[in-house]
Amino acid sequence: MTITFLPSGVQTEVSSHETLLRAAERAGVLIDAACGGALKCGKCKVRIFAGSCSPLTDAERQLLTPTEIELGFRLACCTTAEGDLEIVVPDSHGGSTRKKSMAQLPEDLVFAPAVNLRSVTVPRATMEHQVDSLNRLRATLELPQLTVAPAVLPDLQQALDAKRGKVTAVLRGEELLTLLSGEERACYGVSFDIGTTTVVGTLWDLTDGKALASAARTNDQSVFGADVISRIQFSLAEAGNLTLLQKKVLFTLNSILTELCLAADLSPRSIYDVTVVGNTTMSHLFLGVSPKPMSRTPFAPAFTEAQTLSAAELGLSVHPRAAVHLLPNIAGHVGSDITAMMLAAGIEKRSGNHVAIDIGTNGEVVAVRNGELVCCSTAAGPAFEGACIRSGMRAAPGAIERVDMADGDITIAVIDDAAPLGLCGSGLIDAIAALLQCGALLPSGRLLTKEEAADLPPCIAARITEADSAPAFRLAEGADGVPILLTQQDIREVQLAKGAILAGIRTLLHELGISEDELDSVLLAGAFGNYIRRESALAIGLLPTVPVEKIIPIGNAAGAGASMALLSLPQRQRADRLSRMVRHVELSIHPVFQDLYIDAMQFGG
Amino acid sequence: MTITFLPSGVQTEVSSHETLLRAAERAGVLIDAACGGALKCGKCKVRIFAGSCSPLTDAERQLLTPTEIELGFRLACCTTAEGDLEIVVPDSHGGSTRKKSMAQLPEDLVFAPAVNLRSVTVPRATMEHQVDSLNRLRATLELPQLTVAPAVLPDLQQALDAKRGKVTAVLRGEELLTLLSGEERACYGVSFDIGTTTVVGTLWDLTDGKALASAARTNDQSVFGADVISRIQFSLAEAGNLTLLQKKVLFTLNSILTELCLAADLSPRSIYDVTVVGNTTMSHLFLGVSPKPMSRTPFAPAFTEAQTLSAAELGLSVHPRAAVHLLPNIAGHVGSDITAMMLAAGIEKRSGNHVAIDIGTNGEVVAVRNGELVCCSTAAGPAFEGACIRSGMRAAPGAIERVDMADGDITIAVIDDAAPLGLCGSGLIDAIAALLQCGALLPSGRLLTKEEAADLPPCIAARITEADSAPAFRLAEGADGVPILLTQQDIREVQLAKGAILAGIRTLLHELGISEDELDSVLLAGAFGNYIRRESALAIGLLPTVPVEKIIPIGNAAGAGASMALLSLPQRQRADRLSRMVRHVELSIHPVFQDLYIDAMQFGG
Repeated sequence: MTITFLPSGVQTEVSSHETLLRAAERAGVLIDAACGGALKCGKCKVRIFAGSCSPLTDAERQLLTPTEIELGFRLACCTTAEGDLEIVVPDSHGGSTRKKSMAQLPEDLVFAPAVNLRSVTVPRATMEHQVDSLNRLRATLELPQLTVAPAVLPDLQQALDAKRGKVTAVLRGEELLTLLSGEERACYGVSFDIGTTTVVGTLWDLTDGKALASAARTNDQSVFGADVISRIQFSLAEAGNLTLLQKKVLFTLNSILTELCLAADLSPRSIYDVTVVGNTTMSHLFLGVSPKPMSRTPFAPAFTEAQTLSAAELGLSVHPRAAVHLLPNIAGHVGSDITAMMLAAGIEKRSGNHVAIDIGTNGEVVAVRNGELVCCSTAAGPAFEGACIRSGMRAAPGAIERVDMADGDITIAVIDDAAPLGLCGSGLIDAIAALLQCGALLPSGRLLTKEEAADLPPCIAARITEADSAPAFRLAEGADGVPILLTQQDIREVQLAKGAILAGIRTLLHELGISEDELDSVLLAGAFGNYIRRESALAIGLLPTVPVEKIIPIGNAAGAGASMALLSLPQRQRADRLSRMVRHVELSIHPVFQDLYIDAMQFGG
Repeated sequence: MTITFLPSGVQTEVSSHETLLRAAERAGVLIDAACGGALKCGKCKVRIFAGSCSPLTDAERQLLTPTEIELGFRLACCTTAEGDLEIVVPDSHGGSTRKKSMAQLPEDLVFAPAVNLRSVTVPRATMEHQVDSLNRLRATLELPQLTVAPAVLPDLQQALDAKRGKVTAVLRGEELLTLLSGEERACYGVSFDIGTTTVVGTLWDLTDGKALASAARTNDQSVFGADVISRIQFSLAEAGNLTLLQKKVLFTLNSILTELCLAADLSPRSIYDVTVVGNTTMSHLFLGVSPKPMSRTPFAPAFTEAQTLSAAELGLSVHPRAAVHLLPNIAGHVGSDITAMMLAAGIEKRSGNHVAIDIGTNGEVVAVRNGELVCCSTAAGPAFEGACIRSGMRAAPGAIERVDMADGDITIAVIDDAAPLGLCGSGLIDAIAALLQCGALLPSGRLLTKEEAADLPPCIAARITEADSAPAFRLAEGADGVPILLTQQDIREVQLAKGAILAGIRTLLHELGISEDELDSVLLAGAFGNYIRRESALAIGLLPTVPVEKIIPIGNAAGAGASMALLSLPQRQRADRLSRMVRHVELSIHPVFQDLYIDAMQFGG
């Protein structure tokens, strides 16, 4: 039986046992499955276009709306083919568009990349002085200590023979990476930010430090679960899964590399340096190291320090001898993305008291008091990325990104002005802030029932409905005729997430002995930080109570830090220093955390 | 069409275009072809057992005797199949048995291998001290500077998990090669001597320095020519040939590794260290570097210094992270085998004046005067290994190894007392010495004709016959009914070879300002040095005129040096020092060499 995935037209053969989700995974078609196929999240919706498939399951009856079922939607994790099948994979699967923006680097960054080119002409040997090629090259470059790996020697001999000794040395410090014949000028590097959800790559010209292109793709591991815990569980479930996860993320990186090389019209062989950041689990999976320690106390990872290996060893499609440098992690749940955030935020150089927060799939916090650094990870979960939220979706076209109160009703703004398909993180926070404002939601987190809402403005009251035997709020009519709801369960998810983050921040402030009043700034990193409405974040109590102007989005700080480490060797050393300087605070055994957590789950400032 | 090679029974499919030599090469069946298939050497004899093949060529009519033709012998390089074919590959193809003897190492060798094992128990992390696995291992080993390649991290995490932290670290200095679970004791190393003709490997226990097994195989590159020049020519003939030659020698090494592991009953994964020596061309081919510079003036190689790379990178079947250490070469035609010879001979430590000679496929000479070292390579050619000699063969069963004058006739001794098949190097020198002694051969190198020999003892005179319109001497009736001859042409080949070696020695003595009388010893390295009769070598004038007791065979010095470097790190440093200390003398532009050469071609002391 053949499955055809539309609109891409990719085809694959399946047996009657294989679910559409697994078949898609095998065929390289990306279908989001936040729960990793555990029949829980209802995200892996596909629409049957032609052909017959297995009957509707109970799980699908619970997770799909009657309209969706009528329109032919199925969950890919529950459905098998019963003959040739054509299925439509909705647009909402796949990459977020928001992460593509180029990283902003500090203006005073010292440009000092690891790799440099030098073109020289190496004289020939003579009968009287039969100096070998390698030592003639050393003498010409005036680098008597030049190291050359044995694997470079074939290139060396060939390059010297090709153009009468005119060569270009590709140098990493005093190491010869390769020798090219003639005069070459192409020398590039790529920085990667491996998110649990999205991987972003930026291509840089290493001769002048200019950014050439940027590309983002959903992490191809996503078919095995939305968060790090489901990835870890998958890695432990069966022999071979760990390798599979490593292959998936390498596939994502290689796809991004293809896109970058196409965009900038250059050969992947002229990419000689790569930097990578990611959370600790992503870092482990990237190197094929079991992330098991991150799933159990005491969360001590296999390694934290920076790692450098060759692209060939890893299987990355750049010059085989390019070095791939993974920045240092800090703890089991505080990864090199946070090291990179500290780099980009210049955190240790700021005077006064500051908090930097990265709300990605997890929520990590760094606090600083005049150079003293502490950090923690909070079990925020992926609620703000749309997982576990009934109508949640990524910040892609069709996502509601703004919700406002106006004239006694709510108004929405949708990414790309498209017909609304769901709710992304910034819209979710806005929506809760709006519901708090109009009184439909109590600070305790309880949504009013239709009866209780009788005193609210009629347009608001009319939006209150019910889902899963609990109150729900109708934000909009969906593009496909399915109403976009915010349910009581959704609100509970947000409470747990925002409570964890706020309690984490407060625990760190307690560690440093400072109060919220004494904060000079709250730095928001990540795509989320750029798009969140600060007032709404304050209104729901996601952030410490500070004047709104002290909340400063700092953009894709992880990506910026990875790029800084690519363009400037001193920044790599700074990253190593920062990762050792910052003290990790384990919240789960911290004496004040539990009390702070319960308190922080209340909505409101 | 199928070809079956007997006695091995190996089969392969062939087209009507492919010669038997190429088919054998493809099938991994070793047929010696000194000229590399250039229709010149006549060594690639096979016997057609059943089936039909292409008609006899002119080349075969010239290179095979009528009896051989009658018996069904053909040259594999000239013959193609015309249907299914069974052919017998004679015993004389394949490995020499003489190189298998274990290397003798100096008794005062300091045992200090590069790789060591250490078994420890690594404590678990705690919630209070979430130290990563790598740093807990460092602390337990008390090696704070321990380096660990990223590729080792997966093993590290797995080994720590398997047996409650009980692990064995495989250490190369302060580098973790790998981490094994539990307590392990298996730690081995192999030293290789890559000869142009024969490769010898010796397996050592790196925990106690004991030799466990030794194995020799004909270098699988041999099908592409007997000497370094034909290998170089083959490497340049077509793209891909260089890689093919590298694959061939790696195949030989891997075959030897299999044999060694079988003999000692151990896993190739417990081999953690490898040392390699070989001439400069073999060193280049081993690393896949073009040996082109060795074929043209000024013979400046791509590299000379020692090279270390990982087994995985190279494709050697030992532990993938084992280091393969190639000892330093000295010049284009003085390789790391000569560095190893100097190591084994303790050459720089000897007081007085000495000469060390390695007569392999080439002839390299080192001379020393109270610690001052000079070396040269002589274009001796492979005559003493049996190539270019009509009845020449390797030192294998059936080879005439001794020739004596007794009772007015010559007597012969054959290896393994087999029926004679040909003449090996020691027999060749003996034979010439015997002919000089009885007067059948003049010091100028001319064989008497039958007429001129009338005055010689009748048994001797009766042996004089004719070949290629020139005198020839019948040494024996061959096992196959073909007489074993020493031809005028053979004698000219020996003259050129021995003249080159003697003139090389004399040039070095000239460089050092010493006379032959002042020599304290003449050290003979290599299998040949062990089996040559010193009196005969003096009689024909292969060596300087010294009392016979000053000629000292030192065995397989190249192999011994490779083993010393495996077992003792200080010896590797000594090898590096020796390779820089020794001054290379280029004979072809040396002012006295030509005169000395013409003089040295005369037979006699």
